[in-house]
Amino acid sequence: MERLTVVKVGGKVVEDKESLEQLLNHFSQIRGKRILVHGGGSLATSLADKLGIETKMVEGRRITDAATLEIVTMVYAGIVNKNIVAGLQSRGSNAVGLTGADLNVIRAVKRPVNDIDYGFVGDIVGVNTEELRLLLNEEVVPVMAPITHDTKGQLLNTNADTIAASLAVELSNYYTVNLFYCFEKNGVLLNPDDENSVISELSYDRFKILQIEGIINKGMIPKLDNGFSAMKNGVSQVLITNPNLISMAKGTRLSLIND
Amino acid sequence: MERLTVVKVGGKVVEDKESLEQLLNHFSQIRGKRILVHGGGSLATSLADKLGIETKMVEGRRITDAATLEIVTMVYAGIVNKNIVAGLQSRGSNAVGLTGADLNVIRAVKRPVNDIDYGFVGDIVGVNTEELRLLLNEEVVPVMAPITHDTKGQLLNTNADTIAASLAVELSNYYTVNLFYCFEKNGVLLNPDDENSVISELSYDRFKILQIEGIINKGMIPKLDNGFSAMKNGVSQVLITNPNLISMAKGTRLSLIND
Repeated sequence: MERLTVVKVGGKVVEDKESLEQLLNHFSQIRGKRILVHGGGSLATSLADKLGIETKMVEGRRITDAATLEIVTMVYAGIVNKNIVAGLQSRGSNAVGLTGADLNVIRAVKRPVNDIDYGFVGDIVGVNTEELRLLLNEEVVPVMAPITHDTKGQLLNTNADTIAASLAVELSNYYTVNLFYCFEKNGVLLNPDDENSVISELSYDRFKILQIEGIINKGMIPKLDNGFSAMKNGVSQVLITNPNLISMAKGTRLSLIND
Repeated sequence: MERLTVVKVGGKVVEDKESLEQLLNHFSQIRGKRILVHGGGSLATSLADKLGIETKMVEGRRITDAATLEIVTMVYAGIVNKNIVAGLQSRGSNAVGLTGADLNVIRAVKRPVNDIDYGFVGDIVGVNTEELRLLLNEEVVPVMAPITHDTKGQLLNTNADTIAASLAVELSNYYTVNLFYCFEKNGVLLNPDDENSVISELSYDRFKILQIEGIINKGMIPKLDNGFSAMKNGVSQVLITNPNLISMAKGTRLSLIND
């Protein structure tokens, strides 16, 4: 099968102009079919602050009320997505910016309220690969913003790591998929203060041990859960890395083989 | 040739939730291939106000400095575009939201500074119909936000009336194109206070006379200039109308035949 590279790039890379430029340089050098999935991170928080809208976080997750949904839609699908698209076009990649509502690419449901009401947050229920494959066959580069819809007209704020994993899994029926989670570090670090302590290969069992030991924590846990789940469901390769290392395929490689 | 309907919908229709819902109801009933082009109007101004960014207008045109470009990108390409896309999807139309940067659909140049520096405002230099035709052939409905790019990474604020006319003209090489300019009135009025004074058919000569007499003025003049120019360049039919009248094809019909 033909190769497809899905790159997810996080908030801190996107919100800094220089690191975004670097990412786009490296991303546009990847050969073959490509999809870029981006977050927006603190850009939404800072717009909310300017507008006097309180940002409510529960366990590191944003509570998305109606005003917050407007903000993330403006920031993620508007300014961040379109600047990436224009930046890729200027580098010769024929990008198209999409949310899950566009071409009905990702259907979601509003997260059910149990203990916490997350508001307009979407849990993915389906990925429509037909239109994506049509675009990929035309050498188009889809650029996904972390917004989906419920097919009834409601936009929903959706985790970008999960979007990347869902796309990678569904498209692994048609392509050999490499999934790269890019962030500001060079990979998963054994010592957060030492950039040279990158774990080059990480098995699921070792991940669970490092999680218990507290060495892997916070935002890295759902990222790795998503990554291992993607590998178990057909994705060929998952790499946690820095944008500058994409082309060398260096970083932390996930492995389903136990040590 | 197959028919294509290009509908441009203005600020006042888009900014009111109820009138937008009505537009989407009527638009989704149009049979055959369709493109929707939208403005954003005062929504951008009100966000600018909230953020304390001054809106500068010269002769009815917005001066787009860097901060204003961010705002119009967030509002037009973000919240307005994606709500329309989700609304059309919920009505069974497979919409995709685009700016001119997406798929490199519309190339523009930053308007040269003569007497006035309009800032990041784009004058259209080219329309790429290939990707649009690919989408139209898949029964996809492109939804265009009034933002273009210069192909060098710079987004540009661009008049939605002109975008609609440019798309209609370029696509008239492949389709029989009907271009509808929708706004809050029922058509071009002889008496602005009388909704029943709609001019049902307007020739170019009569338009020029009514313009000299001051009966047609302000924002209607560029709209009609765009409309007549589109007709002279291959568009079959141009109608100035209200969203509720689209399906009946009522309103003010432009005519190249003189009275």
